Amino acid sequence: MLVFSEKLKKCVRENGSRVVLALDLSPSVGEKDFKRRLLVKSRRILSEVEEHIVGVKINFQLLLPLGLFDDLRLLIEDVSHYGLPLIMDCKLNDVEHTNEWASRYFFEAGFDALIVNPFVGWKGGLDAVFSVAKDYEKGVILLVYMSHPGAEEGYGQRVVRDEGAVRFQYEVFAEKAKSWGADGVVVGATQPKIIERVFEIVGRKIPIFSPGIGSQGGVIGEAFRAGATYAIVGRSIYQSEDPKRSAKEIKEKINEAMGQF
Amino acid sequence: MLVFSEKLKKCVRENGSRVVLALDLSPSVGEKDFKRRLLVKSRRILSEVEEHIVGVKINFQLLLPLGLFDDLRLLIEDVSHYGLPLIMDCKLNDVEHTNEWASRYFFEAGFDALIVNPFVGWKGGLDAVFSVAKDYEKGVILLVYMSHPGAEEGYGQRVVRDEGAVRFQYEVFAEKAKSWGADGVVVGATQPKIIERVFEIVGRKIPIFSPGIGSQGGVIGEAFRAGATYAIVGRSIYQSEDPKRSAKEIKEKINEAMGQF
Repeated sequence: MLVFSEKLKKCVRENGSRVVLALDLSPSVGEKDFKRRLLVKSRRILSEVEEHIVGVKINFQLLLPLGLFDDLRLLIEDVSHYGLPLIMDCKLNDVEHTNEWASRYFFEAGFDALIVNPFVGWKGGLDAVFSVAKDYEKGVILLVYMSHPGAEEGYGQRVVRDEGAVRFQYEVFAEKAKSWGADGVVVGATQPKIIERVFEIVGRKIPIFSPGIGSQGGVIGEAFRAGATYAIVGRSIYQSEDPKRSAKEIKEKINEAMGQF
Repeated sequence: MLVFSEKLKKCVRENGSRVVLALDLSPSVGEKDFKRRLLVKSRRILSEVEEHIVGVKINFQLLLPLGLFDDLRLLIEDVSHYGLPLIMDCKLNDVEHTNEWASRYFFEAGFDALIVNPFVGWKGGLDAVFSVAKDYEKGVILLVYMSHPGAEEGYGQRVVRDEGAVRFQYEVFAEKAKSWGADGVVVGATQPKIIERVFEIVGRKIPIFSPGIGSQGGVIGEAFRAGATYAIVGRSIYQSEDPKRSAKEIKEKINEAMGQF
């Protein structure tokens, strides 16, 4: 079995893509039989775009209605069939007992990596996630700066370090990604200058996953020029009239941008 | 239908208790038929202790194996049958699209309140949770200081505010609980001095939920003297040989402590 980072690199080579599909479909309010529809629609979109993506990210939008060991299994099997790495984006930020069991359940269910919030700290917190991930040979990705406006309140705040120096929170998190041995970091595409700064800290060895392109206003060229390694794209693909064409176009735009530097 | 805070107060009056049961059961590794066992054991413990508690808190330990709209429904129905408020402790900390749908699913499934991480900020983040909670007349509880040692890294850090003043992160979060209109805050029982400081900020109107008593080292008397309103207790009850007796003893210890000041 390939570990997460190797599986991801293999897909980049095979599919020539840097697009992680965020399968965050939601039903129309009051829609009947919404669970079956969510599953059918998610599987259909995945089958249409699989050759143009490099991984799949799932969050509460599908986890809660479909159930980890219930209907979600069918989608997880599809992702595995296409050979794509699967990321759980529940932004785990709990104490060790919960972190340990959540990680076990997600990895047992077939996820290759988990996104976690470094704000929760190491001892009795994220140490448990990294420890379980090591046992299962899976990946852990740290949130370093999110893509919404309110991210500024926390991720963008200035913090006083032990030695009295004032640093941005995202710089502290990027340093933790290095020292904790994270397999990736998330930095919103809406903040190319922050991507640039995080890239300076983490270097080429830790990939930067960048959500927020398209519907949230992030621009592909800017994010990748700044150091993004992968784009996390949801609505611009799954809400498109032609998801396959949209995935292909985003893939090509990224590759074009990557070719310019 | 009673809103969350009223339902909670009603249970305090009726059960004379300030104990929120954290039903965070985990299976033994490799245990067969573990989903059914988790459900059966959780329902049994709940039925034994229901008269000595004031609410129930559920987290990933049961959500993931049982499934929100699958077997977990039976447990949710039990909690509702006992008239107890039910809290989802998944520490939501996401962007608005995810927050909105996660909140909807949890409230539709029967939860009365959600615990969220204020670090994620308001705009395009937690505003969505508060907005959905308002629509459903449900509660939102903010993490202000967690109970594990690593909490110091984030919740205990010093941050520079706009006006240049240096504050502790938990003070900033306690102020947000007030300005955002939260229905409660979480402060670990392991930090009575921080409970005291948070109580100074939020006052009597916002209850303080305090986890970490017992197995995590928190002391009942110290936490309640400092201003805790409710204790969140898990292992000290569900791992006890006699959960009913343990719940009753913890309830009485809290009431004794509360009577001393």
